[in-house]
Amino acid sequence: MTQFDVIAFDADDTLWHNETLYIHAKERFGQLLSDYRDPETIVRQLDETEIENVHSYGYGIKSFTLSMVETAVDISGGQVQGSEIHAIIDLANEMLDSEVTLFDHVEESLASMSADYDLLMITKGDTFEQERKIQRTGLAGYFQDIEIVGEKSEEVYRGILRKYAIDPARFLMVGNSLKSDVLPVIGIGSQAVYIPCQYTWVHENLIDQPIDRNAYYEIEHLGQLPDLIINLNKC
Amino acid sequence: MTQFDVIAFDADDTLWHNETLYIHAKERFGQLLSDYRDPETIVRQLDETEIENVHSYGYGIKSFTLSMVETAVDISGGQVQGSEIHAIIDLANEMLDSEVTLFDHVEESLASMSADYDLLMITKGDTFEQERKIQRTGLAGYFQDIEIVGEKSEEVYRGILRKYAIDPARFLMVGNSLKSDVLPVIGIGSQAVYIPCQYTWVHENLIDQPIDRNAYYEIEHLGQLPDLIINLNKC
Repeated sequence: MTQFDVIAFDADDTLWHNETLYIHAKERFGQLLSDYRDPETIVRQLDETEIENVHSYGYGIKSFTLSMVETAVDISGGQVQGSEIHAIIDLANEMLDSEVTLFDHVEESLASMSADYDLLMITKGDTFEQERKIQRTGLAGYFQDIEIVGEKSEEVYRGILRKYAIDPARFLMVGNSLKSDVLPVIGIGSQAVYIPCQYTWVHENLIDQPIDRNAYYEIEHLGQLPDLIINLNKC
Repeated sequence: MTQFDVIAFDADDTLWHNETLYIHAKERFGQLLSDYRDPETIVRQLDETEIENVHSYGYGIKSFTLSMVETAVDISGGQVQGSEIHAIIDLANEMLDSEVTLFDHVEESLASMSADYDLLMITKGDTFEQERKIQRTGLAGYFQDIEIVGEKSEEVYRGILRKYAIDPARFLMVGNSLKSDVLPVIGIGSQAVYIPCQYTWVHENLIDQPIDRNAYYEIEHLGQLPDLIINLNKC
């Protein structure tokens, strides 16, 4: 007897490395503008600008780039050079074109689980950027469907479950963000597996409510998911 | 006897004004940089940059803004000022926050057709931007579901029809772009209604194949759609 009909996965920093890309870009951004301020201050201001802008820009590399441009103008007191702005655009293009690196165990776990369950990918971010990444990874075939959403709220999860006629009690979400992949999912009566990621964007850790550690499962990497599910099915 | 199970609508420049927003922004962009070159040349170069970038950036205001920034650096020979870059970012924020203006007849046509058919919205662009616009218009309630896609190819339409278990022969798409809303739709054996829009982005008119004028329907505005469908059902 299985507990679940559908298992859904977050993508960025759950299936593949993403935040590392931003961390490297921020380092280079700090260096690029180090004539104006110390890199640490610059990166801190960029973080603040990003979080301020997320409500109007959303997620993804293009939003991040606009925040870099805005921060460059601010930090330089309007003295930023055309060549520096050009370097920021180049940095964005490099990010957009960079290889997508899967985490260990991803491919074999998805292969194993897709034999027994319908798998969904539910990811935030920019449709165009995410579709390109999905194409590059070659993972699309494991998934019944891919949902790219603007935010991951209880309402959004409810909408997805309604659309695919999934019973919330038989839905499991797997991801690296307590805020996006765990809290709203247990909030609608489904189950969640949390896989902490070494690098998770600070914004994804901003949780304004207490969370019961026993309300979700936690594993170290995706290779442990098939066994966890086998054990849950025994309960 | 009805001919269709599902009627789908493009959004930008079909349900609401969109291209006008870009046209006004381009005018202001040309003025802003008129110390470097004549506005007409500037806007032409921006158009070229946009079309070059669409393969890596996709659609939407953020992509457009990055193209403005790149064009500003190029056109000024790297001499662009921080204050000018700042003005470009301000322009983007104004676009993102601007009111969404529906075309005439939209609300009553959707109300009338949603009584008899399942309606879908199928729109390209940035998920986050489109979701904000949809929320502002208050039209979401007329639609069974909303699909925000990166590109509108035959493959993408086939995927959507599969997902919702729609028979291609009983699917009708309505939109202002021959390239995105008509050609791929008739290509998969469905039907399409073309509503030309006074302003359509040049990129949407780049069609590299002949198109049979009798392979799709054409109306002047959405208010004519309910009657067209009644007539088609009589056939």
